[in-house]
Amino acid sequence: MKNEKAKVRIIPLGGINEIGKNITAIEYKEDIIVIDCGLKFPDEDMFGIDLVIPDISYLLKNKEKIRGIFLTHGHEDHIGALPYVLRQLNVPVYGTKLTLGIVETKLKEHGLLGSTELIRVKPRDVIKLNSVSVEFIKTNHSIADSVAIAIHTPLGVVLHTGDFKIDYTPIDGEPMDFARFAEIGKKGVLAMMADSTNVEKPGYTLSERVVGESFARLFAKAKGRVIVATFASNVHRIQQIIDAASMHGRKVAVSGRSMENIVAVAAELGYLEFEKDILVGIDQINKYNNDKVVIITTGSQGEPMSALARMANSEHRKVNIVEGDTVIISATPIPGNEKLVSKVINRLFQKGAEVIYKSLSEIHVSGHACQEELKLMQCLVKPKFFIPVHGEYRHLKQHGELAISLGMPEGNVVIPENGGVIDVNRNSIRKNGTVTSGQVFVDGLGVGDVGNIVLRDRKHLSQDGILTVVVTLSKENNSIIAGPDIISRGFVYVRESERLMDEAKEIVKETLRECEENNITDWASLKSKVRDDLRSYLYEKTKRKPMILPIIMEI
Amino acid sequence: MKNEKAKVRIIPLGGINEIGKNITAIEYKEDIIVIDCGLKFPDEDMFGIDLVIPDISYLLKNKEKIRGIFLTHGHEDHIGALPYVLRQLNVPVYGTKLTLGIVETKLKEHGLLGSTELIRVKPRDVIKLNSVSVEFIKTNHSIADSVAIAIHTPLGVVLHTGDFKIDYTPIDGEPMDFARFAEIGKKGVLAMMADSTNVEKPGYTLSERVVGESFARLFAKAKGRVIVATFASNVHRIQQIIDAASMHGRKVAVSGRSMENIVAVAAELGYLEFEKDILVGIDQINKYNNDKVVIITTGSQGEPMSALARMANSEHRKVNIVEGDTVIISATPIPGNEKLVSKVINRLFQKGAEVIYKSLSEIHVSGHACQEELKLMQCLVKPKFFIPVHGEYRHLKQHGELAISLGMPEGNVVIPENGGVIDVNRNSIRKNGTVTSGQVFVDGLGVGDVGNIVLRDRKHLSQDGILTVVVTLSKENNSIIAGPDIISRGFVYVRESERLMDEAKEIVKETLRECEENNITDWASLKSKVRDDLRSYLYEKTKRKPMILPIIMEI
Repeated sequence: MKNEKAKVRIIPLGGINEIGKNITAIEYKEDIIVIDCGLKFPDEDMFGIDLVIPDISYLLKNKEKIRGIFLTHGHEDHIGALPYVLRQLNVPVYGTKLTLGIVETKLKEHGLLGSTELIRVKPRDVIKLNSVSVEFIKTNHSIADSVAIAIHTPLGVVLHTGDFKIDYTPIDGEPMDFARFAEIGKKGVLAMMADSTNVEKPGYTLSERVVGESFARLFAKAKGRVIVATFASNVHRIQQIIDAASMHGRKVAVSGRSMENIVAVAAELGYLEFEKDILVGIDQINKYNNDKVVIITTGSQGEPMSALARMANSEHRKVNIVEGDTVIISATPIPGNEKLVSKVINRLFQKGAEVIYKSLSEIHVSGHACQEELKLMQCLVKPKFFIPVHGEYRHLKQHGELAISLGMPEGNVVIPENGGVIDVNRNSIRKNGTVTSGQVFVDGLGVGDVGNIVLRDRKHLSQDGILTVVVTLSKENNSIIAGPDIISRGFVYVRESERLMDEAKEIVKETLRECEENNITDWASLKSKVRDDLRSYLYEKTKRKPMILPIIMEI
Repeated sequence: MKNEKAKVRIIPLGGINEIGKNITAIEYKEDIIVIDCGLKFPDEDMFGIDLVIPDISYLLKNKEKIRGIFLTHGHEDHIGALPYVLRQLNVPVYGTKLTLGIVETKLKEHGLLGSTELIRVKPRDVIKLNSVSVEFIKTNHSIADSVAIAIHTPLGVVLHTGDFKIDYTPIDGEPMDFARFAEIGKKGVLAMMADSTNVEKPGYTLSERVVGESFARLFAKAKGRVIVATFASNVHRIQQIIDAASMHGRKVAVSGRSMENIVAVAAELGYLEFEKDILVGIDQINKYNNDKVVIITTGSQGEPMSALARMANSEHRKVNIVEGDTVIISATPIPGNEKLVSKVINRLFQKGAEVIYKSLSEIHVSGHACQEELKLMQCLVKPKFFIPVHGEYRHLKQHGELAISLGMPEGNVVIPENGGVIDVNRNSIRKNGTVTSGQVFVDGLGVGDVGNIVLRDRKHLSQDGILTVVVTLSKENNSIIAGPDIISRGFVYVRESERLMDEAKEIVKETLRECEENNITDWASLKSKVRDDLRSYLYEKTKRKPMILPIIMEI
């Protein structure tokens, strides 16, 4: 009877209605299990921001309940906020071998490796923690060593799929652990959270293996160097590039910092297998004939500072694209990156390279499950309640509809929100208020010192620039002692707008004169009058609204 | 013999390696024919810019030779720069009825209608102008009344396809004028310029008519209001929406300024046909049952101020999206707009609408020819020389390869550049130097007063904001009389960074003291010292690089 009133609280603190910063708290009585701790890359209107991380106020308030952060896989949107969060919340971090390998590199950079307890787990491990236990279940994804997480509570199992796809022929030879999913499904799963990324796509995601077949075919045809850009974290993709190179007697060089890091970590941990001498330094490639060289590089998203972009722009210290090169972009642009990728492709063509970038060529497959795979997951796990996660609203909504189309009662599906509390007990699921959540901006060394006001100013400055008006007034009678001087940046070509600036100065003088006559002496009023009069004048003349910054000095 | 030395000069002044601002000069002896005069929408790094228009210095220098501007169709990227160009270059403008109808609305807004000579033409019209004549040939595109332009010169015909697709069942009942294309092809075409937009797509572009069939099907299913967002200029699409509405006894209302403008112009000129009383004002729709209403709206690109975005955000004065509404987004996102469109779709879902936006549903077809259509054009026209236009480099390159694959000698294809002169005579084609070309930024009322320096400043300001340092120095000995004061915008939350600002002031004082000691008195050196010292200090503390603006007042 006691347990009838008990409940599991599921609180996503990020990752809902957005792509990135995935983090979810699962709470049962005195225990909180945190799943993932990711970052988000800034939207284009977050000027100057480097990264976005989740607001973890709720976790800080409940510090003593937290049993650890449990990672599903090593992508940035699932682990990237760790270096920031761990500074405030020093709890154990659980993850599989490769995931923790990537986390270690990251924590080392931030000087946090020594102070963090990292606990390595493997699929089927079960960690007992007070009133709950946490189990890891093997899945497939676009990074090796991905797992789903099952939390066994006295009320039942809460399952989080993590990011997944179903690959019957994965590169590591181990498909998802169907047996275990079916087993816990048979015993009964209280609630499931599942990856919604590809819910709009019918059918099945192709196996990673088809990409290897494309590489083999393309490498055979290539008469010069082959340069492959892909996501650094896709270790299986990298393995397949190396295999194709080996098949055609080509040496492999690696370019781009994150690619070099991951290849080192993955090779050390045994996730990449190759003959020692196939890998050569990027400065060694000129020793080999062009048709004996493959370069694996970052830059598949067109990032302007990436190795591939630098090669395309003749800014790479070791590699310049030349006629005869074959460049394979083994990725699809993440929404928002289309133009950047397009720019790089144009440059590569201009340099005479053959560029292979179409989805047609099967040089990339997704890491996320399409509709038929999502249905399979529903049918294996047969959860009582369903919470679609990892997607924008439209994805969550359609994922919910998919579950309903398979027979789930409409009331058993809850579309979550960041910070929204979902209470689940044996018989019901309901939304129950909210906790603090949101986004924290990282800008340089600052974490959280840039907020909406600063961003609003940056946006304003970016549109029409700034006009600074400086004037020195007499302490006694507010008469002008020096100035007004006007300096603008980002507004107009000053040289061609001298008259505009001269007239603007006259406006300011006139305004100050009026204020003197009307005995307006407090600085706030003076500044606001100057700002208003100048704004009207400039808008009339230019239809622009620069930021106006009046500065009064008094002596 | 005389003509052997004569040549046709083809000079694209825009539209090459970019999407937008199409404009080409075709020159024979003393005559210049200008084809199209378009604008480009700014890239995301052109902060604050409203529009981009072509640099027409070359045309201004050769004013007396220009016989007119000849328009292929009424899209912004082909006519949008007219109001700016005509102010400097008052020449006749030739176009078909609908094209000129749209131009008129535009010129009226800019007060240029009275001073411009607009000459209405129809397909197969031939305009004789001194040594050349200009012929208009009917095509199909995503706007009615599109034409190709053939320039008959003593050296042969130069053909510009304009934007085109091949539609065997167009809404106006008139397919492209195959007969005329074949006829001039048979007589011999010296050079062809052709639309490269869809050269990467195999097969054929579907007929506009399939979209109408989808509308009919979707309208039949919809239980509430139907809201269709599409490009305002696609008059045939609008006709099909009205036809589907009529078929299901629904009234039609129009929302969005450009949509209202085009519907008015198109109806007046006879390009839209419907029974008078089917059209109702947007404030009348509440008089009808929801299942008797269709709203045609702008916003298919997710533009934040568009009617659809306002409906989705509950900011539209007349229409609020409610459960039961069906929203059809009859367009695909233009590269760069994906995220904006996605945002609107999410909002619409959140409001409970059914949203139909997938290419799967055949609710949009392209206006540009795919590979098989491009091949047909090559085979009809059989040009001696080929210049692919209207695309990024990769499109032009692949379009060239398509022509070569059909048997054209490699040397007969020239990939053009903006400002690059292409000389063609009976036997040869070659690049021959360049003329001034480029982009002119329109920002508010200013045309060309914002250039790269201003944009660089806006970009800098957008990333890290600005810090203004003001100090009043004594004329006699450069000692500090007032200040230094530091005011920042877009840099940090000032309230949380008081210590940083206080320390920054100390840095400035210290720097000025040092300068005094070392007898550094000229302002340029003082300012540069202040800037350098402050920059190092702030970078060390924040890893940010705000713009630093030192201002010295002297009394």
